[in-house]
Formats: sequence, structure tokens, C-alpha cells
Amino acid sequence: MIGPGPNNSITDVPGVKVGNYTRSDSGYRSGTTVIRTETGATAGYSQMGGAPGTKETDLLKPGGQVRGVQAIVLSGGSAYGLDAATGVMQWMEEHKFGVPVGGGVVPIVPAAILMDLGRGGDFKKRPNAMFGYKATEAASTQPVKSGRTGMGMGAGWGMGTASVKLSNGYTVAAIVGLNPAGSPVDPRTCLPYGYFLELADEFNIVQPKAEECQTAQAGRGGPNDGSDGAPRNTTIALVATDAPLIDLEAERMAQIANAGLARSIRPIHNIGDGDTVFGIATTPFTTQLGNADLQAIFNAAADVLGRAVVHAVLDSKQVGNSRLGYCETYPSACVKRKAAGR
Amino acid sequence: MIGPGPNNSITDVPGVKVGNYTRSDSGYRSGTTVIRTETGATAGYSQMGGAPGTKETDLLKPGGQVRGVQAIVLSGGSAYGLDAATGVMQWMEEHKFGVPVGGGVVPIVPAAILMDLGRGGDFKKRPNAMFGYKATEAASTQPVKSGRTGMGMGAGWGMGTASVKLSNGYTVAAIVGLNPAGSPVDPRTCLPYGYFLELADEFNIVQPKAEECQTAQAGRGGPNDGSDGAPRNTTIALVATDAPLIDLEAERMAQIANAGLARSIRPIHNIGDGDTVFGIATTPFTTQLGNADLQAIFNAAADVLGRAVVHAVLDSKQVGNSRLGYCETYPSACVKRKAAGR
Repeated sequence: MIGPGPNNSITDVPGVKVGNYTRSDSGYRSGTTVIRTETGATAGYSQMGGAPGTKETDLLKPGGQVRGVQAIVLSGGSAYGLDAATGVMQWMEEHKFGVPVGGGVVPIVPAAILMDLGRGGDFKKRPNAMFGYKATEAASTQPVKSGRTGMGMGAGWGMGTASVKLSNGYTVAAIVGLNPAGSPVDPRTCLPYGYFLELADEFNIVQPKAEECQTAQAGRGGPNDGSDGAPRNTTIALVATDAPLIDLEAERMAQIANAGLARSIRPIHNIGDGDTVFGIATTPFTTQLGNADLQAIFNAAADVLGRAVVHAVLDSKQVGNSRLGYCETYPSACVKRKAAGR
Repeated sequence: MIGPGPNNSITDVPGVKVGNYTRSDSGYRSGTTVIRTETGATAGYSQMGGAPGTKETDLLKPGGQVRGVQAIVLSGGSAYGLDAATGVMQWMEEHKFGVPVGGGVVPIVPAAILMDLGRGGDFKKRPNAMFGYKATEAASTQPVKSGRTGMGMGAGWGMGTASVKLSNGYTVAAIVGLNPAGSPVDPRTCLPYGYFLELADEFNIVQPKAEECQTAQAGRGGPNDGSDGAPRNTTIALVATDAPLIDLEAERMAQIANAGLARSIRPIHNIGDGDTVFGIATTPFTTQLGNADLQAIFNAAADVLGRAVVHAVLDSKQVGNSRLGYCETYPSACVKRKAAGR
């Protein structure tokens, strides 16, 4: 392993474009993130939580007819937010991306949502087809910044991304909408559980002062800390690589990436969570990778997803009456980070 | 086993309402079928084909949080047709049916589609949210008639339904949108493969004359016979019972119902098919059924789905330039049936 990619972002993987559409006006507090791979990326997924909201996942089962996806949608809005995928399909059809069939194309656009309804925003103001269309249109290879963007706007802990460049030459990266029923912060230290996964001083924090930690834990971190069992949950994520994987390997990468969630969130995969992780490979399969390369990629997927979780925690500030951001709750932890302009 | 239910229809199962929205005007040739169980039915599913189009199926995995579905959508329109579920959710929200959460409700509406795009109709004229809304609004406990209705309008072989009343008192019924890459007609006899599943003279046909069979097989049954490998495929179905099943048993009922497809269609579950079967139980789980009752219900689900396939074959007439109906292709087989007014 060498270290984070140039931007420590999901778009460090060649072939990945990301677009966000975010609303916090007019009663909205939600958003949609689209990972655009319009000419087709090999994809798999793993669904672990007990209350998922998904679309077009059955076709990702290895061995089926579909070999490439045009986009993957990660959105707020609970089950209603799956409508965002409709707008992505519309954009893809207009641009003629999809499986050619019967005189037209059928774009393949799997989707998963997280539950952010009624958390500050108006219950009826949620992502729809327009959110997906605009996020798709906005997609680019520019670095994605962790924080209250896209699917992270209404999520308990926001959106995070990270990347890693491996010594075998491949890049692996993750993007996550962090909305677990569990917590990403260890109540004993008040450091993020995933702190130990840090590469190259990327988090730039120290353990908060004991008083801050005690106060925050007594108040359980302010509103929406997830520990009261309310149904505001689901962590959705995508891990990507430019390695040439087959569908079965993309699925396995997604499965193993769950270990990154397990290391950075506790408890995880609850009955009220709909945790879903997609795995995509942007390079068409040509030759079979050896086990050493595959193992390095799979393990990297777990670690990079854990690091993306920590970035979501550190970069997502309070919006309206949402949860306080980590550095707002534990200012003593973030002195160096703040001085560095983050 | 006693015999078919009073109407030999999916709505013979107490608690099942069905609505269809069908279009064959203005360039449309498609439709949507909604199975409405708005106060919640226990549900599972089985997905066997290699090219499915589905929505909200992951949440049906047994052991999760969701214990009831408000509706299940079976629609034409390929992946685009999944939008029909949006209209069903809208209707359910307006009527306050769904999982209560964050100040509103989230309706649980799994969906599956079949591929009928570009088969006579305009590629862009396909089911959308309005189709789902209108089908939901129209849903009732009235008998459903097999034929070119709802999801069956654009399907290769139409829509079929059947029911059976078991000697243990429970009813099991099926509804199917018949659009396989394989064929439901045995080329050696030109009888439907599922002919042997007949109950109470419900099919009322005889083996067609040898000349008719030879002519039809030479012409392979007219347009869209499915044997040319074109991507016009996917059989979608739902089996229902009023027995009090848990989610795992509803899933198993759906799995075993695939045997009914295997007996009535050959080949089945092809790479280009998206075959998906839902299983629902309309009576809330109270006491665990014994194995004898469960076995009777599961086997009945397979047979009733096979019979529904045959009804689709026999009742779906030609519309525009669609496939010729069975009785149009083999008039000698249907003399008695026609005399009986069918």
C-alpha cells in the first residue's frame, strides 16, 4: 500500500464520475448522489441491514445477463427516494446509454436509499426523479468533498469518501452515506471507532479532552445521535476499483467492505438498518487476477470504507437542527485540523 | 384438494385485491397489475431468471424489519416500468397505508417487470407512476379474468390466473404475466405443457389436429413465439394464500412455485429471462402450521401457478400484431371451449 490517492476521493478511481444534488431550502433537507459509469462498470452488492430500500439489485447476482451498470444511485428519502433512479434512467436514455433492446436502450441503474425523512426537513420534501437527473448531469471526475452533500445532507452523520493507491498499481475508493442506528464514535475515548485506520495524517485530530467527552456522552452527542432506537438509520455505500474484476469478484469486494463498516460503526447491520454496499470495477474484465491482488483489493475496500466513515464524521457540520458535527461537539480534538483549514 | 376456488382467480384468496391498468391506444401496448393488501401481507420472493428488473425485494429477506407489504406490482415496461410502483406508493401515502415513520408513512411496495418494449407498441410509451396509481385505485376483490389485461397486454402470452381450494380449508391462487423466452406449448402435441395440471375441466380443450400442429410448428406459432432468442422475455408471478405463514414460509412458497413454471414452460429461467415469483400470505401469523399443511400449500402453489400459465395461453387473443392466441392458432383444439362461450 502506498497511501491515499491524489484527492483521497472516490473519483480517484479512473472511470468513476460522481454528481450530487443537495437541497436544504424550502423544507428540504435531503439529497442524492449518483455514481456515473455510463459505458458500463462491472457491479455487485451486499445487503446486510434488516430494513433496506433498494432497486435493481436482483440483476446484480453473478451469472446473469447484465454485465455492466450505467450508474448507481445512493439517495436520501427512504423508499420514496428510489424515484431518484428514474431521473438517472431518463438522462441515460436521452444520451443513449443502456442495454440495447427492442429499438431503444434500457439503462441499468441500481439504487439504495437511507432514511432521513422527517429529520428537520418536511416529510413530503424528498428526492424525486429530478434529483437523480440533476445529480447525473452534474457528475464529473472532480474530487468529491466529504460533508453534508448529496445523500449526506439529511443523513445522521453526513457523507464521506476516501481512496487508497495500492502497491499493485490499482486504486480502491469508497463513498458512504452515514446514517447508522449505531454510533461511529467510541464512547470511552470519544474518538471515531475508525480512527486507527488513518493513512497519512488524513484525519488530523487528537483524543478530545475528558470533560468534553463526558459532557457529550451525558448528552449523547446532541440531537439524533442514533442511540435512542428511533428509525433514522441505514448506511449506504459504494466501493470502486479500476482493477479488472468479474461480477462475482465485485460482489465479494462489496461483501468484504462490510468489515470496514463493522470497524467504524457499532452496533452495525441492525434490524432497523438497511445497510447496502455496492462494489464496482471500472476496467472491463480481461485476465483473471491472482489471489494476492484480489486479496489486497478486497482488504483495501474494507479499510477505505472505514476511512470514508471517519471522513463523514469529521467533515459533516450541523445544518439547521441536525446533529452537531464532531468538531463542534469535541473542539479540543480538532484544533490542529481547524488550523489546517478544515 | 377440493378443486378450483369459486372464480378460479387470484381474488379467491380472502384479503387479496387486484387492479389492472391496460393501454393499447396511442402507441401503447402495455399495462400494470397491482396486488393490493394495504393493511399488510406477509411476503417473500424467489428470483430465478438471469435478467430481472425488480424493486424493493431485498427487504423481503426473512428476518428483517419489514413484516408486511402494502402492495406488489407486476408490470410491463422493462426496467422503466418499475416507475409504476411510485404511483402505488403515492396512492398508499394518500390513504395513510405504510410503515409509520418520522411523521408520515413509508408504503412497502415491491415490484417486478417483464420486457414488452418495442413489441408493437411505441418504445417510449410504457407504464409510469400513473399506471400504478390507476391500477391501485381500481383494485377490488372481483374475479380477475385471464387475457390481455394489465401486465399481460404486451407480454408474449398474456396474463393468467387460477386458484385452488385445499381440503385443509386454505385457498392458494396465482397470477402470472407470461413472457418467457421458452414456450408454454409442447411442439410434439401442440398442447400446453401444463395441460396435465387441469382441474375440473377448466381448460376444456382437446389435442389439436395434426395438420394444425404441423403448420403452426413450421411457422413457429406466428410472430413473437419466443423461440428466436430475441430479448422479449421474463415471466413474473405472484402466489397467494390465506394460510398464516411467516416470512420464511412465504419465501419457500414462492421458491416451490417455480416448479409450476418449470412444468408449464420449456426452457425456463433463461439468462435472458428475469423470472421472479412473489409469495404472500394474507392472514397474520398466529400459530405455526404443521408440515402436512405447509407441504400441501407449497405443492398447491406450484400447481396453481402452472395452471395460471395455461389460462394465460388459452385466454390471450391477438392484439394488433402480437402473437396469435392459442385458439386462433389451433382452432380444432378449442371447439368445445368456444361452444362454452370462452
